[in-house]
Amino acid sequence: MQRDVFHWTIRTYFEDTDSGGLVYHTSYLRFMERARTEWLRALGFSQERLLGELGVLFVVRSVTIKYIRPAMLDDELAVTTRTRRHRRAGLHFDQRIRRLNADGADLCRGAIEVVCMSAPTRRPRAIPSSIAVEITHGG
Amino acid sequence: MQRDVFHWTIRTYFEDTDSGGLVYHTSYLRFMERARTEWLRALGFSQERLLGELGVLFVVRSVTIKYIRPAMLDDELAVTTRTRRHRRAGLHFDQRIRRLNADGADLCRGAIEVVCMSAPTRRPRAIPSSIAVEITHGG
Amino acid sequence: MQRDVFHWTIRTYFEDTDSGGLVYHTSYLRFMERARTEWLRALGFSQERLLGELGVLFVVRSVTIKYIRPAMLDDELAVTTRTRRHRRAGLHFDQRIRRLNADGADLCRGAIEVVCMSAPTRRPRAIPSSIAVEITHGG
Amino acid sequence: MQRDVFHWTIRTYFEDTDSGGLVYHTSYLRFMERARTEWLRALGFSQERLLGELGVLFVVRSVTIKYIRPAMLDDELAVTTRTRRHRRAGLHFDQRIRRLNADGADLCRGAIEVVCMSAPTRRPRAIPSSIAVEITHGG
Repeated sequence: MQRDVFHWTIRTYFEDTDSGGLVYHTSYLRFMERARTEWLRALGFSQERLLGELGVLFVVRSVTIKYIRPAMLDDELAVTTRTRRHRRAGLHFDQRIRRLNADGADLCRGAIEVVCMSAPTRRPRAIPSSIAVEITHGG
Repeated sequence: MQRDVFHWTIRTYFEDTDSGGLVYHTSYLRFMERARTEWLRALGFSQERLLGELGVLFVVRSVTIKYIRPAMLDDELAVTTRTRRHRRAGLHFDQRIRRLNADGADLCRGAIEVVCMSAPTRRPRAIPSSIAVEITHGG
Repeated sequence: MQRDVFHWTIRTYFEDTDSGGLVYHTSYLRFMERARTEWLRALGFSQERLLGELGVLFVVRSVTIKYIRPAMLDDELAVTTRTRRHRRAGLHFDQRIRRLNADGADLCRGAIEVVCMSAPTRRPRAIPSSIAVEITHGG
Repeated sequence: MQRDVFHWTIRTYFEDTDSGGLVYHTSYLRFMERARTEWLRALGFSQERLLGELGVLFVVRSVTIKYIRPAMLDDELAVTTRTRRHRRAGLHFDQRIRRLNADGADLCRGAIEVVCMSAPTRRPRAIPSSIAVEITHGG
């Protein structure tokens, strides 16, 4: 498995759209977070395990997102997640969303930085080595 | 102050709508919760005080909502909250949402039941007497 | 295919939860709408076809929901959708949400009434016969 | 009125938080959009007037947001909106969110680019001169 590129498919529903007739601009960021969550799960780290067993939480520190074309109600979207680099406490992702139906167009691109926090202290801490090892093996 | 009828005003934004061109059906329930939260705050109980000082959390147990007319983007809405009755651990509210601009139409009516939970144990418990006293005085 | 009982599986993410530590009470209604949308799609009616080809929109007219146990972050939920009856312009659904992981507990039950609207006029209209036939065959 | 700096106050509710115990990362972007909407309203341009009278829609083209400190449930937030520059079809905003209660901390900073679209054609078009004049006068 090429662990540094991960694909996740998402369907859009009414809840994701707004009265402009298109998918609302923050919905893409929720989709990207779902994809990062599933990427972690595919590496063996569910949120339950992260919190319960490892005592950590990943928190978004910065987002840059460029909207190219709008997604519509009922679209099927592919979210591509690439781990660009990881540091002691942080992970940088490049994520893209593409429409799978109709024109197959690229819809948006995001650069997301998350930081590993200790759940009890709410302070940044090193990524647990069991996770870091999995990310590095895939890189 | 007539404490058992409480008014709260809310503006609708793009985030509240869907691509059907109207306010999304779950948004009205978020508006009703904002109004209940502000009703509690007006009685002197912020969420911070509820959790930190009294160690309780109000959780929604049931909702019945009837949609009469749709709210639109940019509408100004009045949410009316009436405490119908309260029991040892539960509160029953009648809530209505009306459009303030344009036609002033009634938009929806909800009957919401919330239950008081102990924050540490996550089990139902009696409503703290300091809150119960305020509700009764208003009724 | 037993068309009047339909199952759809949903994963919960951070976006679905609130700081009470549980899934937020309106999220269940979004999950139920996803399941109704997928039920219609399984019958051959995507939102695109409903709007573009048949010129109709289904709008929620009333909801009754009882919360039994809370869903948590990362739960896998099964949403069961049963068409209780359909009238000229309306559909009544019984929907249940169950946790698939851990205890397999029943989490909530909803009775949802939707009404068929003409997309151009925004007025109730008869359910298109092509849809009504599919629902009846399954019943 | 110094039209190029606009302040808007927002209260956080359960709907804005997640089970990490803090305000969810996309909520800040909804708050920023509310503030931009109110800035336009203060200039005399409601969404209704934009769509109905001028036939335009502002769409988010890019977002860069840095999260400094987290907002909590029940916080009162000040959103500051500054129009950095405007071009023929686009507007660039610098927005900041600060906590008004407790520590008064800076919570996040965003650079948001929106583009003016023709509502009927869904293509970029020049900002209507009646709006451009108001923005320039304020700058």
